[in-house]
Amino acid sequence: VDQHDSAFDRGTAVEARGDGRYAATLGESWTIGPGRPNGGYLLAVLGRAALARAAAEGADHPHVLAANVQYVSSPSTGPAVVDTEVLRIGRTASQLRARLVVDGRPAVEALLTTGRLAEGTDPWWGAVPPVALPAEEACRRLPSMSPDGEERPSIRDVAAVRFDPACLGFLDGRPDGSAELRGWFRFADDAPVSPLALLFVVDAFPPATFALARTGWVPTLDLTAYVRAVPVPGPLRMRFRARVVHDGFVDEVAEVWDAADRLVAQSTQLAAMRIPPGVDPPDPVPPGGPEA
Amino acid sequence: VDQHDSAFDRGTAVEARGDGRYAATLGESWTIGPGRPNGGYLLAVLGRAALARAAAEGADHPHVLAANVQYVSSPSTGPAVVDTEVLRIGRTASQLRARLVVDGRPAVEALLTTGRLAEGTDPWWGAVPPVALPAEEACRRLPSMSPDGEERPSIRDVAAVRFDPACLGFLDGRPDGSAELRGWFRFADDAPVSPLALLFVVDAFPPATFALARTGWVPTLDLTAYVRAVPVPGPLRMRFRARVVHDGFVDEVAEVWDAADRLVAQSTQLAAMRIPPGVDPPDPVPPGGPEA
Repeated sequence: VDQHDSAFDRGTAVEARGDGRYAATLGESWTIGPGRPNGGYLLAVLGRAALARAAAEGADHPHVLAANVQYVSSPSTGPAVVDTEVLRIGRTASQLRARLVVDGRPAVEALLTTGRLAEGTDPWWGAVPPVALPAEEACRRLPSMSPDGEERPSIRDVAAVRFDPACLGFLDGRPDGSAELRGWFRFADDAPVSPLALLFVVDAFPPATFALARTGWVPTLDLTAYVRAVPVPGPLRMRFRARVVHDGFVDEVAEVWDAADRLVAQSTQLAAMRIPPGVDPPDPVPPGGPEA
Repeated sequence: VDQHDSAFDRGTAVEARGDGRYAATLGESWTIGPGRPNGGYLLAVLGRAALARAAAEGADHPHVLAANVQYVSSPSTGPAVVDTEVLRIGRTASQLRARLVVDGRPAVEALLTTGRLAEGTDPWWGAVPPVALPAEEACRRLPSMSPDGEERPSIRDVAAVRFDPACLGFLDGRPDGSAELRGWFRFADDAPVSPLALLFVVDAFPPATFALARTGWVPTLDLTAYVRAVPVPGPLRMRFRARVVHDGFVDEVAEVWDAADRLVAQSTQLAAMRIPPGVDPPDPVPPGGPEA
């Protein structure tokens, strides 16, 4: 599949409407609940609009380097607009705001930094070794998580995510207490993962708290993503970890490596986490937590 | 010192001007270069305005839980305004935008999530043990870093930061290669550190890359801070680590613990890092980096 005819590129396409406004269509294939687009997908749509705006302003900044996003309301699929504002066009990097508006309501607000990532370079220095994983064939796709068991379009149709079976105890009601999900990512159509698509990848896993305890959904309040390099062709590896659960909030960190073992994307998010009465943490922990 | 008469509270005070606008005065004591306010201080001023706005809208959300910030231009000290916009007033959390404008130019843009942190609670679960440090008395304040050796007002007057001597090799031109700075934080006037003040604390250290290699300044492009708990009285401990240096960018992670060993704040930032010709990384590293 050519990158410019991939499901991702079609699903995140935007069209200039003038005055920094871009039109988009939020696709059914990018949902996690009935008709509810995935947060990483929405961020990628905002990123696409920000890149179009930066280009329209004459910036040679074809990549989103950093993105902060607040999920304000959960939009429906269908027509949407993205309003962009240029904060600064710089030499190394440019800074923009973008807002996704659906049915006249703000749905997602983002701050984006754009620039140019070199291709084929290695890190100058790094302290984040790649996650160890069984072979992709030995990893498992998740069964449908839809509450009523009905099969609907969802990101499972476009994202082929395979998890290390060792972290999937939660599927049988036995979270392993590690608060860590690990797995492989590739697009179902085998399209190359562009730097822009990494904004989708960092939010393509279920909450890492699934591997900690049985709780309800864990809605993201605030997400930050950094894109560090252009991935080489091949499947990506991802690790998604919860760090601290305190007073109804949890922070989760994602790291993504390409087939050349390079860290290509990172994210951190703060999510609300309601813990049902009677659910205890997996281990008694000292105030500061166990050794990481 | 009473919290409401602290240097921090005076330095970050805002006054409502109507229509979501707040007036502030950026103080000389909160600078890092001649007349250049520190980034964490600016974020705290934005946070103060966002809390005032949330209160004006009737939200019972006295704490900033999460903040994303883009540094657009480096403002001067003196009069400034903060324009706020409410994105959503929710039950658990509210979301706002805020923009610091100085001399008619946007200087800092932020997205803020506000809510209420419980006091005196322990984490339900955590995987971030506190950093080990020598006693505060055995740690060292930094000498003045001003290029011309002239003593000027700076955050050294208001923030008493003491570093573990083991990470200060860079002062003698011998960075230890760890990319980690560790130390104690308290306000010079011994005022309690409020949750809002943690937005200042997470950016009160020099770049962690000082403990990696001799490079120039490392300007922050994008910073995200999470506030997790109301600190108990007493000095804070902080660890600030660089993670990956690639293509002229570095990400740095800060963690802050209170005197009860609880993680009270976290931050991550992406910064530009120009590496002078002839400066090599401290160790030959495999593509993914050494063991963290």
